[in-house]
Amino acid sequence: MQGFFSMPESKEIIEQIIPKIDYTSALDPFSTSKDVIDACEVVKRYGFATVCVYPTWVKLAKEHMAGCKSGILVTVGFPHGSTTTEAKCAETLQALKDGATEIDMVINIARFFDGDYDYVKNDIAAVVKVCSEYRVGVKAILEVGYLSDEQIVKAAELAAEAGVEFVKTSTGFGPGRATMHNIALLKQTVGDRCKVKASGGVASLEDQWAFIQEGASRVAGRGVILEQLNRIGYVK
Amino acid sequence: MQGFFSMPESKEIIEQIIPKIDYTSALDPFSTSKDVIDACEVVKRYGFATVCVYPTWVKLAKEHMAGCKSGILVTVGFPHGSTTTEAKCAETLQALKDGATEIDMVINIARFFDGDYDYVKNDIAAVVKVCSEYRVGVKAILEVGYLSDEQIVKAAELAAEAGVEFVKTSTGFGPGRATMHNIALLKQTVGDRCKVKASGGVASLEDQWAFIQEGASRVAGRGVILEQLNRIGYVK
Repeated sequence: MQGFFSMPESKEIIEQIIPKIDYTSALDPFSTSKDVIDACEVVKRYGFATVCVYPTWVKLAKEHMAGCKSGILVTVGFPHGSTTTEAKCAETLQALKDGATEIDMVINIARFFDGDYDYVKNDIAAVVKVCSEYRVGVKAILEVGYLSDEQIVKAAELAAEAGVEFVKTSTGFGPGRATMHNIALLKQTVGDRCKVKASGGVASLEDQWAFIQEGASRVAGRGVILEQLNRIGYVK
Repeated sequence: MQGFFSMPESKEIIEQIIPKIDYTSALDPFSTSKDVIDACEVVKRYGFATVCVYPTWVKLAKEHMAGCKSGILVTVGFPHGSTTTEAKCAETLQALKDGATEIDMVINIARFFDGDYDYVKNDIAAVVKVCSEYRVGVKAILEVGYLSDEQIVKAAELAAEAGVEFVKTSTGFGPGRATMHNIALLKQTVGDRCKVKASGGVASLEDQWAFIQEGASRVAGRGVILEQLNRIGYVK
């Protein structure tokens, strides 16, 4: 969905969207230091919620985000999620030491399909515990493209019980994407226990606004969002 | 390529391929304990080189591979490779404690594209060092689908200098795949310093045999290989 918004009519809405955007333009396995620095500059200029980086780039992002209130979002167990809890905790701890202000971890999809819900919950809770010492929130990525509605509800329940700040739809590297249906389902499941993030295939400001109205408190956004802001003439 | 081999004419060739197969049928983010156990049973029955598992399943694989000379191959930094060295080492150490006998790690693709070759080499060498205490060999996955020929040569050089046992083409989750061209290029680059593994898109015994003749000492194989063995009537 694209093309409804224009300037100056949509300025107020756009200014509600902007502080909810996790900016993912540097979240590719081959993103270089230049890509990371460019992403940091965009996030600072517009005041997006966070810049999203792989663990290897956290220190670099911290240098470039100094003095800025936007955060540094770091992926953990990404994108397959099926490593050990010990490995996720170690990856998280290093990211926190390096300067992460938010951790987006992939749940253990393999164990979820195995029906070992205690493992899945404890895996998330272990990362939440590591983060709590740094007062950093965790988002649990459910990779909803693999899941039925019933499974989405179950996975969101486990994440909420484990103490996450957000449940989040997708990595962007698996099947499926954020949809109005799964955002509503997540919101209905978690209620006020945690927040909801829409990610995976979010391709326009209109998409982001639709997800926010459906209950998402945070939305992913790649370079296409920046292009759209430029095209419609939005100036910060 | 498929269909050249038949029984009993190809039995001798097939028996040269079999001990070089790393069996990957349980290497999906959603592979369950049943998938892992089934893969272990196949590997034991045929005498493949290894069963390939995510870190979360190493302990389970160890139980089911007890008393068998086939190994347990575990992925690290998989499939994007762009986490911290600390995270890769911690993931490796836990996998070794759990029973891994081979470690297949993805190189830091982001740093490679950044031209930070010291980082890439040191990252591999750090994992090699952790493994050396357990006398376990490391395969460096170069994800050749992202790389030009010149970059493949450079990445293979770095891995060989870092002390890997194998350089390996692909994760199977990225772009590109093993080809006769890149196997030959890798073999020519590393010479006798390390071995070459063909992985990514390897779809038949004929593919595997072609790669072995081109210089690969190990080849990936999924369920399609098992189906082919059954179809042509090969019995162990």
